[in-house]
Amino acid sequence: MSQLFMFEKPLGMRDTLPELYEAKSQVRNAIGNEMKQWGYQFMETPALEYYETVGTASAILDQQLFKLLDSQGHTLVLRPDMTAPIARVAASKLLKEDLPLRLAYSASVFRAQQREGGRPAEFEQIGVEMIADETVSADGEVIALMVSALKQAKLENFQISVGHIGFVQELFLQILGTEERAQSLTKFLYEKNFVGYREHVKGLNLSSIDKQRLLDFLKLKGGEEVLDFAQSLLENGKGREALLQLQQLWEIVVDYGEQEKLKFDLTLVSHMSYYTGILFEVYADQVGFPIGNGGRYNLLVEKFGKTTGATGFALRVDRLLEALGELKKAEPAQCILFSDERRKEAFQLARDKRGTGVKVVLQDINGVRNIDQFTEQYGEVTFLIGKAGRGNES
Amino acid sequence: MSQLFMFEKPLGMRDTLPELYEAKSQVRNAIGNEMKQWGYQFMETPALEYYETVGTASAILDQQLFKLLDSQGHTLVLRPDMTAPIARVAASKLLKEDLPLRLAYSASVFRAQQREGGRPAEFEQIGVEMIADETVSADGEVIALMVSALKQAKLENFQISVGHIGFVQELFLQILGTEERAQSLTKFLYEKNFVGYREHVKGLNLSSIDKQRLLDFLKLKGGEEVLDFAQSLLENGKGREALLQLQQLWEIVVDYGEQEKLKFDLTLVSHMSYYTGILFEVYADQVGFPIGNGGRYNLLVEKFGKTTGATGFALRVDRLLEALGELKKAEPAQCILFSDERRKEAFQLARDKRGTGVKVVLQDINGVRNIDQFTEQYGEVTFLIGKAGRGNES
Repeated sequence: MSQLFMFEKPLGMRDTLPELYEAKSQVRNAIGNEMKQWGYQFMETPALEYYETVGTASAILDQQLFKLLDSQGHTLVLRPDMTAPIARVAASKLLKEDLPLRLAYSASVFRAQQREGGRPAEFEQIGVEMIADETVSADGEVIALMVSALKQAKLENFQISVGHIGFVQELFLQILGTEERAQSLTKFLYEKNFVGYREHVKGLNLSSIDKQRLLDFLKLKGGEEVLDFAQSLLENGKGREALLQLQQLWEIVVDYGEQEKLKFDLTLVSHMSYYTGILFEVYADQVGFPIGNGGRYNLLVEKFGKTTGATGFALRVDRLLEALGELKKAEPAQCILFSDERRKEAFQLARDKRGTGVKVVLQDINGVRNIDQFTEQYGEVTFLIGKAGRGNES
Repeated sequence: MSQLFMFEKPLGMRDTLPELYEAKSQVRNAIGNEMKQWGYQFMETPALEYYETVGTASAILDQQLFKLLDSQGHTLVLRPDMTAPIARVAASKLLKEDLPLRLAYSASVFRAQQREGGRPAEFEQIGVEMIADETVSADGEVIALMVSALKQAKLENFQISVGHIGFVQELFLQILGTEERAQSLTKFLYEKNFVGYREHVKGLNLSSIDKQRLLDFLKLKGGEEVLDFAQSLLENGKGREALLQLQQLWEIVVDYGEQEKLKFDLTLVSHMSYYTGILFEVYADQVGFPIGNGGRYNLLVEKFGKTTGATGFALRVDRLLEALGELKKAEPAQCILFSDERRKEAFQLARDKRGTGVKVVLQDINGVRNIDQFTEQYGEVTFLIGKAGRGNES
């Protein structure tokens, strides 16, 4: 292979070196333990799924899927998210009599990138799915768990924005009349292009009152009071049910004592097209993208043959680490350098130290060319060299 | 999608349900902690690599590689092993002045299968690589670490077979004269087809003495005494160096106190063509395939531009679990069933219990259709329902 090409990795693919790995592990463990404490059970699904099943159910743009052909000519995809595979497993193996099911995962997902220097094409998500419970309590639980898990991971400054896709759909349909026109406008929300949204609204053939309703809609961000204002923009109909759910959610989150982490943002929509109700994103200070998101998806499990609702969230470990800032340095290991004559003594010493929880590197001195440089990496160095007694230790 | 196809997974792909996941985690943690205690640092590499770099270096048969094309038309592969990617990273980023480097990983690897019901196409390996130390002490260390890690994982009955690829190559070359003829015979060893080996030897155009040497070779299995017998089959030359290394290895393993886990099997060769010296496999009672393997690969890192030796091993978590036998059932979680009126009280109780390390499922009773069936799953159930005091708890 050519000298230049030799070290390269495919577009968007990254190595995780030991220091970062350690930080990731700590975050993953802190969050995973909290999920287990709340009774969520971890599971795994394969990296490859059929395009026709999980690939199409996943709500990830087709151009972002890594596709390949298997030996039978079926198209496979690298899983682009974990929600669809878990829905597959829940529907086929785990759902009994539609009893509520609490599942968790920690896994890499894959989304092809078009440009270098952009987003990662493989990244780790840790998340939960609560399946077959259609109460708002379930939505409240996953939000409260997300808050609690992030606190366990030592993240302090973060905020959860909560919206409801049913409210947006209903309001837009009331004002715009057709699904198609509603979707054209929703696209601006998905892109968070509020300037474009305003321009688009101005150009619509609507009464000035309706245009104002659509412009006022952008102000629906804040605390509980937002819900009353939202109510005033609506005519009767299904949108009220959405607001009622958000009101209930607020009360549940108050009962969890986590209301200061939550604000409403009724302009929130998602690129995950499977959401059907309450949905949310979590932002941390100084990170430009959401570190996690979630919501209710009451129609996805149905694609795998069971009619039942579900809700859940996924956190992005890479962005969470970015939010946590500088990595803590690990305690350096100790090192025992030995020569053949005192090898057995060295092994015994290492075993004793490791038994007390100390990390110990055992190193044959003949395997090292530059002793000074080698020993620099370690916190404490013991030399067990040559035939004599214990005089040459340090 | 069709009803039948909906739940299917690609050939050789498997789900890991919660019970098995928990068992895997425990094994992974026990082994991973031991590796860290020995000063090995964990790292990760991407699931996708360039075919031209890691794909060709990996020593996995081309037909077993999952290949795909990226948007630039490069061929990518799902990593078929972790040794080649780690060699890539070590050579490009981690090796400083060729100081010994101790790395560890726990990752899925991918090998396409041709038939259903066969081997998994994705499986988890946990292993270490010790790079830039060419002493036999390094080989001894990874073997001793493997023994220690398996003991930490509570595996009791296992055995490590140790051979040396240099000995086989030298003996066969001395007797057969050409690389090509040596390779034809080695193929039988790789397949562990000893009947085929004997037939092949009988058909060779050799003196009866040389044929006997090749047949006696198959007897080179056992303790330290095997090395003397092996010596007697050799003429002078490089084979002696291999036996000397095995003698040293034996003494090192004795100093670790682990010699009863080790036996020599000089017929051992590997399908991993990058091995250059001492190599080994670990077998557990009642599992037909090795649960792990490893060895010295002094030429692989060179493919990534650094001339230095390395040794390491990989354990297969799936086979290790098979060897460990029946899964331990996890402690069942507790459950608190609540209605709106006592929601806040329920949340507080759950928080208190979780704070003491108990797993607690909080469940809104309105989310459950069949209460009896739901509560059956839990060890202890508390009802906080209705407006009254505490009379209706159980």
